Amino acid sequence: MLEEFEDQRLRLILDVHKSVCDATLVHFRTPVAIDNKDEGGFDPVTAADRAAESVIREAIAARFPDDGIFGEEFGSEPGRSGHDWVIDPIDGTRAFISGLPVWGVLIGVLTHGRPRLGALFQPFTGERFFSDGQRSFYDGPGGPRILTARSTKTLAEATLMTTSPRLFHGDEARAFETLETGVRMSRYGCDCYAYAMLAAGHIDMVAESGLNPYDILPLVPILQAAGATVTQWSGAPLSIHGKQSAIAAATPELHQAAIEALAGS
Amino acid sequence: MLEEFEDQRLRLILDVHKSVCDATLVHFRTPVAIDNKDEGGFDPVTAADRAAESVIREAIAARFPDDGIFGEEFGSEPGRSGHDWVIDPIDGTRAFISGLPVWGVLIGVLTHGRPRLGALFQPFTGERFFSDGQRSFYDGPGGPRILTARSTKTLAEATLMTTSPRLFHGDEARAFETLETGVRMSRYGCDCYAYAMLAAGHIDMVAESGLNPYDILPLVPILQAAGATVTQWSGAPLSIHGKQSAIAAATPELHQAAIEALAGS
Repeated sequence: MLEEFEDQRLRLILDVHKSVCDATLVHFRTPVAIDNKDEGGFDPVTAADRAAESVIREAIAARFPDDGIFGEEFGSEPGRSGHDWVIDPIDGTRAFISGLPVWGVLIGVLTHGRPRLGALFQPFTGERFFSDGQRSFYDGPGGPRILTARSTKTLAEATLMTTSPRLFHGDEARAFETLETGVRMSRYGCDCYAYAMLAAGHIDMVAESGLNPYDILPLVPILQAAGATVTQWSGAPLSIHGKQSAIAAATPELHQAAIEALAGS
Repeated sequence: MLEEFEDQRLRLILDVHKSVCDATLVHFRTPVAIDNKDEGGFDPVTAADRAAESVIREAIAARFPDDGIFGEEFGSEPGRSGHDWVIDPIDGTRAFISGLPVWGVLIGVLTHGRPRLGALFQPFTGERFFSDGQRSFYDGPGGPRILTARSTKTLAEATLMTTSPRLFHGDEARAFETLETGVRMSRYGCDCYAYAMLAAGHIDMVAESGLNPYDILPLVPILQAAGATVTQWSGAPLSIHGKQSAIAAATPELHQAAIEALAGS
């Protein structure tokens, strides 16, 4: 299934997979990561972040020198090809430093500003979730398959995930509580991996706030090509500018119900 | 490393590993599990639970017919050998039905009422955490190793996990909040897997309440032999009778600090 892709940028994403896994796993569950308690000192997560982002940036520079790059660790480099890369080398820092297998490496491509390609790698489980903009794919222990979101249309049937309810404050906390009160089940703790579970049809919704563009834009094509809808809480499209909220849902109907709950209507 | 064990009951635990993984994984991330929304109807998690518990019970009955068994799905069978098995075939039901790789199969042995052997299997990641009562062991993608808890002694340095802060009510909710306020970082969402991360030295504390004996007793030997301390919030030992709270910590000093925070002192 993986040999079929003609898009050269998607091929790059799949080609760097192994190097990115090696660069991150060497720091995962290691004593240096475990013992680091100094907020102001050496940060092993950043070491893993930087190693992974460097691997990806080098591959891009070699094959697509005119593309723009927007990465968490090394900032922005404007491009002139109409293609911009968005990279979060380790999304889910708290999961990473707690030994949990629910962090991910996120790589996305925006073409003329629109999220078109995306990938999430979970190196420890050996999983990858990615999209060519038309379909979304899974590759991992259960074998390769096409990702399809569920058909859930109402809040009362839905499973909702968020990283932590304590991340919301003020109006956002009240809005999230309204949403959470309406769903069948809520579950905490997964950062990017929650969106992968949504695209894969295991849960129905993810709500988060305070996201950077690189936290969410690489996930947009995976969600959309699996049939899910994702926007800011206001309903506006996700953007490459500034911090933003995200609400992702398995169907347009469920997404609309979530938007209304978050708006308190 | 795994060939060394002389304890015949630990051998049984390791021998049933593959059958238990097969029995649970066949239901994990399947359409039948994904589509089940009927709380009163067919429950695929229970199907996986029952299949796994049956495999374990059959092995015990064949090799240790005089042992007692206390399982989640099929109840208690008193024994007369002085050895009692405690089984939770799928701990972390919400994780299981949400596709997340942080549920576990728990198998423990109490000898004359004292938790002596314990195992946690995570079939999807291919990990197992277990104890012979003297040491605790890991076997999985990172290769086999001995489990050792951290040396963290103060709340201010500690990473705390719990499945969900919404599971605490009234006095327990206030006690947990006092504890959480004092720690460096808290993280939600992992059921039994959190205790494994504590034994493995990736986090420092786990606090939960409303646990059944089979949710926690199989984890006690893994924690204790890794150097951690685990009791009820009152400081009393965990018991095979009734629902109880649990506070597990990397060191006796940290455990004492947690007990005091939970008591509001």
